Amino acid sequence: MNTNQLNESILLRSDEKGAVFLSLNRPDKLNTLSEAMLASLQQELDSIAADPTVQCVVLSAEGRGFCAGHDLQEMRSNPTHSYYQELFRRCGQVMQSILNLPVPVVAKVGGIAAAAGCQLVASCDLVIAARSARFAVPGINVGLFCSTPAVALSRNISPKRAFDLLVTGDIIDADTALEWGLISSVVDDADLDNAVTEKIEKILSKSPSAVRFGKSMFNPQRQMSLADAYEFAGNVMADNMMSPDAGEGIDAFLAKRAPVWEKPAG
Amino acid sequence: MNTNQLNESILLRSDEKGAVFLSLNRPDKLNTLSEAMLASLQQELDSIAADPTVQCVVLSAEGRGFCAGHDLQEMRSNPTHSYYQELFRRCGQVMQSILNLPVPVVAKVGGIAAAAGCQLVASCDLVIAARSARFAVPGINVGLFCSTPAVALSRNISPKRAFDLLVTGDIIDADTALEWGLISSVVDDADLDNAVTEKIEKILSKSPSAVRFGKSMFNPQRQMSLADAYEFAGNVMADNMMSPDAGEGIDAFLAKRAPVWEKPAG
Amino acid sequence: MNTNQLNESILLRSDEKGAVFLSLNRPDKLNTLSEAMLASLQQELDSIAADPTVQCVVLSAEGRGFCAGHDLQEMRSNPTHSYYQELFRRCGQVMQSILNLPVPVVAKVGGIAAAAGCQLVASCDLVIAARSARFAVPGINVGLFCSTPAVALSRNISPKRAFDLLVTGDIIDADTALEWGLISSVVDDADLDNAVTEKIEKILSKSPSAVRFGKSMFNPQRQMSLADAYEFAGNVMADNMMSPDAGEGIDAFLAKRAPVWEKPAG
Repeated sequence: MNTNQLNESILLRSDEKGAVFLSLNRPDKLNTLSEAMLASLQQELDSIAADPTVQCVVLSAEGRGFCAGHDLQEMRSNPTHSYYQELFRRCGQVMQSILNLPVPVVAKVGGIAAAAGCQLVASCDLVIAARSARFAVPGINVGLFCSTPAVALSRNISPKRAFDLLVTGDIIDADTALEWGLISSVVDDADLDNAVTEKIEKILSKSPSAVRFGKSMFNPQRQMSLADAYEFAGNVMADNMMSPDAGEGIDAFLAKRAPVWEKPAG
Repeated sequence: MNTNQLNESILLRSDEKGAVFLSLNRPDKLNTLSEAMLASLQQELDSIAADPTVQCVVLSAEGRGFCAGHDLQEMRSNPTHSYYQELFRRCGQVMQSILNLPVPVVAKVGGIAAAAGCQLVASCDLVIAARSARFAVPGINVGLFCSTPAVALSRNISPKRAFDLLVTGDIIDADTALEWGLISSVVDDADLDNAVTEKIEKILSKSPSAVRFGKSMFNPQRQMSLADAYEFAGNVMADNMMSPDAGEGIDAFLAKRAPVWEKPAG
Repeated sequence: MNTNQLNESILLRSDEKGAVFLSLNRPDKLNTLSEAMLASLQQELDSIAADPTVQCVVLSAEGRGFCAGHDLQEMRSNPTHSYYQELFRRCGQVMQSILNLPVPVVAKVGGIAAAAGCQLVASCDLVIAARSARFAVPGINVGLFCSTPAVALSRNISPKRAFDLLVTGDIIDADTALEWGLISSVVDDADLDNAVTEKIEKILSKSPSAVRFGKSMFNPQRQMSLADAYEFAGNVMADNMMSPDAGEGIDAFLAKRAPVWEKPAG
């Protein structure tokens, strides 16, 4: 395992066989998204976006909570409108960078994911949670409606459920989050590591180029009209068909043998 | 409790501590949305929209049903295309006024919510239903597909479920409506009053200005592209952060004391 | 029952009392969507769209599977970008023709619906599945991410669930597909024929013109802003009110008698 210089910093990174593991590392602050944390996340996401050898990302967190949202103390120390606009702009950019990343991002969630922490969960492609994980957008309890988290939340769960969480600040458990479609799976706390490893190994076993075609297509097409989405997705799929891996994969399937994928470029 | 002059009319209104209680009052007609009922609803919604002291609205109904939809007899008495266009335009305006209201609207549903009555339910922010409540869009049974209810329904539940209800006219019970995300919660019939009171008290306990920021942001952003939604929500949240309540709320949270919210303006 | 000349071909068609039964008939190839199959489907859908006597369509398949997606062998025999673009364009057109058809399309699914076969399911208005039916978008396993199926899938189920299926190629059973809203109902395998017959008879018992008003309105309005959708749906509903069937249906309802619908034009 190759661990980079951020290892002692607020965002841990390690790379292993095409997977990048990012871990929020401010456990004493419940991994809040301070300016520094957002900057570190943005820097790593930009680096991953430019690295053709990466095949998937795992986003986890150190300590008992996943992420408690913004750093309220830091926010109160900078009481200007322009500061807040810029802070929320940067936060929204991190979330959109996850959606626009050319590889899947799997969130591994134990403990509480609150406010912008819940937004982070909603912005990942797949979310595997421990049964004891909890989800909330409780800004309303401090007089600050979770407006930017609402953007991600309302694009993942039904509007009635999203608004209810937002206006009450109520906490839901992992099984409820699963039933509502906010997360992808729930496992016993003791099985969380294994479940994430298993999911990552499954993704790594697929054609790296095909996974990239898919991730790059999935989120943009959701915002298009049906006709535009079909035209866009059809063109991506034609490109995908011309790739060596599709040829190999289909030939292997027809010949009833295992495919051998190309190594990622780079 | 302060009850206004509509008390003996088709739409009851009472105000209590920031909450406005509206109740459809044509129980012998299953509270159908006649021209007069739509006009009364529009008038009250406009009045509420302009009143900064209101913090939330409860929409309920008198008698055994919630609302059976349009008044078919009245409709048949005015058999012109322009009459119907205008009627559906006014009905759609009432529905959109609920979505655009700066405060949350909680529907309290006992009995049947059918056709435009189901649309009314789908248009409210939160819906608390008695277990015996029933939901349907059965216009198809009288040769009139529930097209305008479909607009609200298809923005709240999955398209297959919405179309099935629309083309069959089938009735679903409250538990199914909850599972599908059409409503927010189901309680035993005997507990309906208490459940609504509890929800309203929870909303009234929050910062009135923060709730208004949230409601005013939530529905508009749903119709935007992701990038536009983030820009819009980020700006709303920056405004929210500059409000006295956000400062008080965060300071109280950091000091582990209860916040004291500003009284609503007005 | 009137069976046309396609009977011995790859797409069976029979007509009965306003219902058109189409059945994919390449059971030895798991009913893959070859060029010829797509052309036959397009031809029949165009014919149905132009036929005012049709009231609904049932789409089923011969043999143990529903549809395994594209014909991989045929695709590999035509390894040019322009061929694939055109193939996916035609496939997307078949899917959009189902959505744009003026009458409901009910899918009857036994066995596996995979890749473009799952897209076909997602594109129908109603889906009745045998409990043993299975659903997947497993192109990723042959190096070809199911991009065009993703368009239909992500407009029917939550994005996390859709992306999970797409990136893993995992198979879900009928009960899971029902819970996620991908399909309309699940019945025991032995009851599939009866369940479809019952659904078709219910649709045929409704006003043919009202069903057409509804189907023609439902999918287009989903792509509009809320205000535009209300204006569009209100105008369709005003047109619907001016139809003889709406007058008859409402009069019959008010008189507590059964309505008598107009025969479809043609």
